[in-house]
Amino acid sequence: MPSEQTLAALRAFVEAREWDQFHSPENLAKSISIEAAELLECYQWNSTPDQQKVEDELADVVTYCIHLANRLGVDLDEIVMNKLTKSAEKYPVDLAKGSMKKYTELHE
Amino acid sequence: MPSEQTLAALRAFVEAREWDQFHSPENLAKSISIEAAELLECYQWNSTPDQQKVEDELADVVTYCIHLANRLGVDLDEIVMNKLTKSAEKYPVDLAKGSMKKYTELHE
Amino acid sequence: MPSEQTLAALRAFVEAREWDQFHSPENLAKSISIEAAELLECYQWNSTPDQQKVEDELADVVTYCIHLANRLGVDLDEIVMNKLTKSAEKYPVDLAKGSMKKYTELHE
Amino acid sequence: MPSEQTLAALRAFVEAREWDQFHSPENLAKSISIEAAELLECYQWNSTPDQQKVEDELADVVTYCIHLANRLGVDLDEIVMNKLTKSAEKYPVDLAKGSMKKYTELHE
Repeated sequence: MPSEQTLAALRAFVEAREWDQFHSPENLAKSISIEAAELLECYQWNSTPDQQKVEDELADVVTYCIHLANRLGVDLDEIVMNKLTKSAEKYPVDLAKGSMKKYTELHE
Repeated sequence: MPSEQTLAALRAFVEAREWDQFHSPENLAKSISIEAAELLECYQWNSTPDQQKVEDELADVVTYCIHLANRLGVDLDEIVMNKLTKSAEKYPVDLAKGSMKKYTELHE
Repeated sequence: MPSEQTLAALRAFVEAREWDQFHSPENLAKSISIEAAELLECYQWNSTPDQQKVEDELADVVTYCIHLANRLGVDLDEIVMNKLTKSAEKYPVDLAKGSMKKYTELHE
Repeated sequence: MPSEQTLAALRAFVEAREWDQFHSPENLAKSISIEAAELLECYQWNSTPDQQKVEDELADVVTYCIHLANRLGVDLDEIVMNKLTKSAEKYPVDLAKGSMKKYTELHE
């Protein structure tokens, strides 16, 4: 993840604009937070926002996630699967079923 | 994006825990912002964080993005490519090269 | 804002720990976002969080806001009042009453 | 905190626009995160933003913090001082001096 085609298009976009110089991991992390808040803004006062707006904001978050993964030299599918293994340990099915308690409270 | 295997694993994880009831688009949007801030926390006081920690936090952001895309019925590659087309119009190469001005200032 | 006593206590806390070196405006801006997300986390899955937890997280946001105002050499009451004047122009009572439309849509 | 005058002005602003109906604690918590990200955006690509822009965005964060404190029935000076007492225990001067380690790592 993403597809080779998407990744190539994103890389070409950034290279043509010489934006690599701005894409430090720290700046990308800030950008992910900023775009995540723009996504959240769709739901600021109600829970039924415009679908196109939500898609665009979600795309912005994911775009910066792809750039950061690229800079870190990691594959998104791989790190998501690695994290899922850890989460499965923190949230065993028998304890976590139907509950949104944090794992720190779950094992009390 | 993601791979069928990753998507299936994420879906199975959520279903086993009966967490779909909590995964409204609004709650997922909040979750993306919350996890994005945990990623940012890696860079709060310095710019050289622990790589494993960054990977885990980035994975959390992307995981909720996948869940939200799933709820919205959209494909992440597709919305990223759609948004890229819009961004290419907002940031023409000749105006945007080497500059991080916002598009609202770029066309002045 | 804040009271002289609160400001003095916050300054003394930071000075004793020699944390001024970390409190660049940029780091404080990141910290405000990070703490804001911890506040939001209280409301991640439901709208009735623990009051003490909410107070503590809100206090963290405001603490960093006070530190940033201090670094910028501005008074919080003053900038809040200045911004309120601008908002009153953007959101005239007759257009904005009972509506949460953004001002960019309000004047259409 | 804030001054009686600022609080009265903010209350009057909201009442005139009948916005209290939108100001649930949860919506205010989302708003604080959204405005915090707009503040962070000032520092997205560089560390020397426009001072007026920073002041306006910081004012927005603090404005929603005041509204939330008001809804929760708490005084900002009071909760900041309460949290400071807790932080002083988590970060004893002799361990924390000159270090930005998290308290969870500090006591190891």
